[in-house]
Amino acid sequence: MVEVKVLTDILAANDAIAEVNRKIFKEAGVLSLNLMSSPGAGKTSLLERTLEALSDELKFGIVEGDIATTRDAERLEKFDVPITQINTQSECHLDANMVHGAIKDFPFAGLDVLIIENVGNLVCPAEFVVGEDHKMMLLSVTEGDDKPLKYPLMFHESSLLLINKTDLLPYVDFDMEVAKRNALQVSPKLDILTISCKTGEGLDEWFDWIRAQRV
Amino acid sequence: MVEVKVLTDILAANDAIAEVNRKIFKEAGVLSLNLMSSPGAGKTSLLERTLEALSDELKFGIVEGDIATTRDAERLEKFDVPITQINTQSECHLDANMVHGAIKDFPFAGLDVLIIENVGNLVCPAEFVVGEDHKMMLLSVTEGDDKPLKYPLMFHESSLLLINKTDLLPYVDFDMEVAKRNALQVSPKLDILTISCKTGEGLDEWFDWIRAQRV
Repeated sequence: MVEVKVLTDILAANDAIAEVNRKIFKEAGVLSLNLMSSPGAGKTSLLERTLEALSDELKFGIVEGDIATTRDAERLEKFDVPITQINTQSECHLDANMVHGAIKDFPFAGLDVLIIENVGNLVCPAEFVVGEDHKMMLLSVTEGDDKPLKYPLMFHESSLLLINKTDLLPYVDFDMEVAKRNALQVSPKLDILTISCKTGEGLDEWFDWIRAQRV
Repeated sequence: MVEVKVLTDILAANDAIAEVNRKIFKEAGVLSLNLMSSPGAGKTSLLERTLEALSDELKFGIVEGDIATTRDAERLEKFDVPITQINTQSECHLDANMVHGAIKDFPFAGLDVLIIENVGNLVCPAEFVVGEDHKMMLLSVTEGDDKPLKYPLMFHESSLLLINKTDLLPYVDFDMEVAKRNALQVSPKLDILTISCKTGEGLDEWFDWIRAQRV
C-alpha cells in the first residue's frame, strides 16, 4: 500500500524544494510574489491593471495556478509577457514542486518581477512556501471585514494585504477600519493598501510597493 | 514515524463515518444539508434569513464549521436553535469525523432540518461526504460568472446552487445567463435559484426547495 508521511514531513519536503526555487529566483534577479485570495477577489484583474500600467517600466513574468481551465492565462495573453500555466487538478493550492515545474525552464532573461497567481482559496495556499520573496493577498470588501479573524493564517503569512473592490463599499456592509484592525491584530507588521481594480483607486500605491521591494 | 494512508484511504475512512452519520440523521428524521461556499459569499446570512422566516414552521438545528472563532454561531444565537460549533483549526473543510463529534449528542428531538455550515472554501469541502442528504452551495455574483468552470467539483457535487447577492448585479461584471450555463455544463441536473439575502429576493423559492426535500 502506498503511504505518505504526515503533514510536517510534507511541509519539510516542500520547504526543501522551495529553497531550490528561491535560488533560481535569486540568480535570475527577479522579485517573486505569491498572490493569494478567495475565488473571485480580483487576482487576475490586479495582474491586468499592473501589466497595463508598468509594462514599459518593468518586465514581468506570470505563473498562473488554477485547478482547471486556462481562462486566467488567456486574459493575460494580450500583454505579451511570459506565462506558464499550472493546472493543479484536484489540489487546492500551489506547492513548491508545482512551481518548480513551472519555473525550471522559464525565460527569466531580463525579467524584473515574477508574479505567481495561486489557486483561489483563503486557507491552504498560505501553508505552502514556494520560494517567493513575499506572499501577498487580496481581500474583496464583499467578503466581509471579519475575514482576518476567521481565516488568520493567510493574513499572518502575507507581507501585503490589498483590500480590493472599494468601488463596492457603498453597497456592502464592510467597515474598513474594523477590517484593518482585525488584520493588524493577526499580523501587526502587515502592509495594507486599499484599491479598486475597476476604478484604479489606490493602484499607484501598489505600484510603489512593487518598486520599493526591488530596491 | 507516524504515517497516514493515501487520500483514497482517507476518503474511504471518511465515507464509513459518513454512513454512521447518515443513519443518525435518518433515525432522527431530519433533513441534513451541507452548506458550502467561498469565504464571505453569505452562508451565515442565508441561515439568518432562513431562521427568521421559517422558525415557526420548521425546527432547525445548526452545525457551524469555522477554522477559528465562534462569530458565525454568535450571529445565530438570537434564534434560540440548537447550535454546535466545530473549530477545525488548520483544516480547510469539515469531514465526517468532525461532524460526527458535533452530532453524536445533538438534541435531535423534534428537529426537522439540520444545516451544516462548512468552512468557507470553494474547493476542499466538496471532497468530503459527511452523511448529508444534500450538498448545496452559494455563489456570490461578486465572484464572477466563470467560477463553475474554474472550480468544477463543488458545483458537480451540489444538488442546489444559490446565486446570492443579486442586489449587487448593477455594480459588477456578472452575466447571470453565462453563470447558469457554466454551472449546468458542469452539472446538468443542478437546481439553480437566484437570491439576495439583503433584499430577500428569491428567498421564497429557497424556502420552497427546503419544503420539497422534506416530502
